[in-house]
Amino acid sequence: MKIGIIGLGLMGGSLGLALKEKRIASMIAGSDINEFHRRQALYLGLVDECLDMEEIIQCDVVFICTPVNAIVDIIKNIKSLKANQTIIDFGGTKREIIKAIPKKLRKNFISLHPMCGTENFGPKAAFKDLYKNQIMIFVDIINSGEYQIDLAKNICIQLEMNIIKMDSKSHDRHTAFISHMPHILSYALANMVLKQENPQDIVSIAGGGFKSMSRISKSSGVMWSAVAKQNKSEILKSIELFEDELNIAKTLIQKDDFEKLREWMNNANKLREII
Amino acid sequence: MKIGIIGLGLMGGSLGLALKEKRIASMIAGSDINEFHRRQALYLGLVDECLDMEEIIQCDVVFICTPVNAIVDIIKNIKSLKANQTIIDFGGTKREIIKAIPKKLRKNFISLHPMCGTENFGPKAAFKDLYKNQIMIFVDIINSGEYQIDLAKNICIQLEMNIIKMDSKSHDRHTAFISHMPHILSYALANMVLKQENPQDIVSIAGGGFKSMSRISKSSGVMWSAVAKQNKSEILKSIELFEDELNIAKTLIQKDDFEKLREWMNNANKLREII
Repeated sequence: MKIGIIGLGLMGGSLGLALKEKRIASMIAGSDINEFHRRQALYLGLVDECLDMEEIIQCDVVFICTPVNAIVDIIKNIKSLKANQTIIDFGGTKREIIKAIPKKLRKNFISLHPMCGTENFGPKAAFKDLYKNQIMIFVDIINSGEYQIDLAKNICIQLEMNIIKMDSKSHDRHTAFISHMPHILSYALANMVLKQENPQDIVSIAGGGFKSMSRISKSSGVMWSAVAKQNKSEILKSIELFEDELNIAKTLIQKDDFEKLREWMNNANKLREII
Repeated sequence: MKIGIIGLGLMGGSLGLALKEKRIASMIAGSDINEFHRRQALYLGLVDECLDMEEIIQCDVVFICTPVNAIVDIIKNIKSLKANQTIIDFGGTKREIIKAIPKKLRKNFISLHPMCGTENFGPKAAFKDLYKNQIMIFVDIINSGEYQIDLAKNICIQLEMNIIKMDSKSHDRHTAFISHMPHILSYALANMVLKQENPQDIVSIAGGGFKSMSRISKSSGVMWSAVAKQNKSEILKSIELFEDELNIAKTLIQKDDFEKLREWMNNANKLREII
């Protein structure tokens, strides 16, 4: 089995390393629009060879691990596939991507979302255990071919991932809450501190709390602005719900109601029960 | 030298373990208003013995590691001290605490803020390396006695901490940005998700981003509501600045200006240069 990986950053590069370690493919090819990233990926051993787009799309299994806008563009340009070919996207949004799949090729496509990552990006950010013990969401899987579903499940199991199924609407709503909007919050926190007169002085005393809250503000703007575009309405909804919640705290502080503020904080502690 | 620790939670308990490991005191006494916590602290070996408040205040060095409202109450009740006694508070806010120090005893007091912690609390949360390699802020130290300053610095150096000096006004402003307000954000994120119809389903797919952003929402509401009360104006100011920044992102998304959103995100990446 020959596997192709389009997009050789954190996600695609780590996938290459993991597939190699598990000896899942006879050959792993890579492709990336950035020439320097192609060279880095080869140098770091993330893939065995680099191919251009027309060639890589001939592989038995093709993973698309680019920002979500590029996933849509790549998918739209696929005109024909062999019956047993499997195209798997790793996009962080799902409705727009699945809408872009040519109807006659629908069975060839598997839409996955690995719920893992770090704030680092590019080929150098790749590491072989990124996917291990993490969640892989299979989205709108009912419309994929049986052969393709079995193959994708098999690969995920070999990567030691935990599989969850979800429809694309729930996916885009849930991930706005759990991932997309929290990224926006972290970017806002970082930008707000950076705008102060003396950000170095402020940040020099940062403890674990600020480090946690600002970590994902170091993530790729190319990737996350594309996610914001494709999941606009759900992200706006969740930002507004967040603003309402923040406003509760602000009002309690303004009104000196620190008893209620403590209750509000204690209520948040209930998260301990589910995560 | 006999050291007393008032408040045997994460901060006080970890201090007890670290002081013991470094053999800094001949005897470490503890005190806590919660009887169960006193017993836990003895069982876990955080302190050598438990004393009541009147007794513990006789120790050569007394650390006050309670929530900030209790620090103020304790300090106000100290009527007399021997010349070489040293009272050190670990409060996360400073202006209100330092204001509460009786003027004639000012030299006996050292106001410190260790920039470390975890989301866990109570004696069971204590661990001996909490302070190692972390920052300790010495606040308004110019008004403390020379003997007390040397003693406090010496202990911090033995705990392998990095010392920074700051005045109380700058401290309260900077920590609002770097610590207090980010805690409010995390609590708001947790509460907002918990209010959804199916929080378990949403949280079940959480990756590293949500885990980072929600971690400190598990912190003690008793501690953080007291901080909010004592640093009200600075926290409200920083919440408003955060809201302005979040609003920039929201407006760019509403106006479909994803180019500018990407620039805004890329700008936040500059945090990499200073942290």
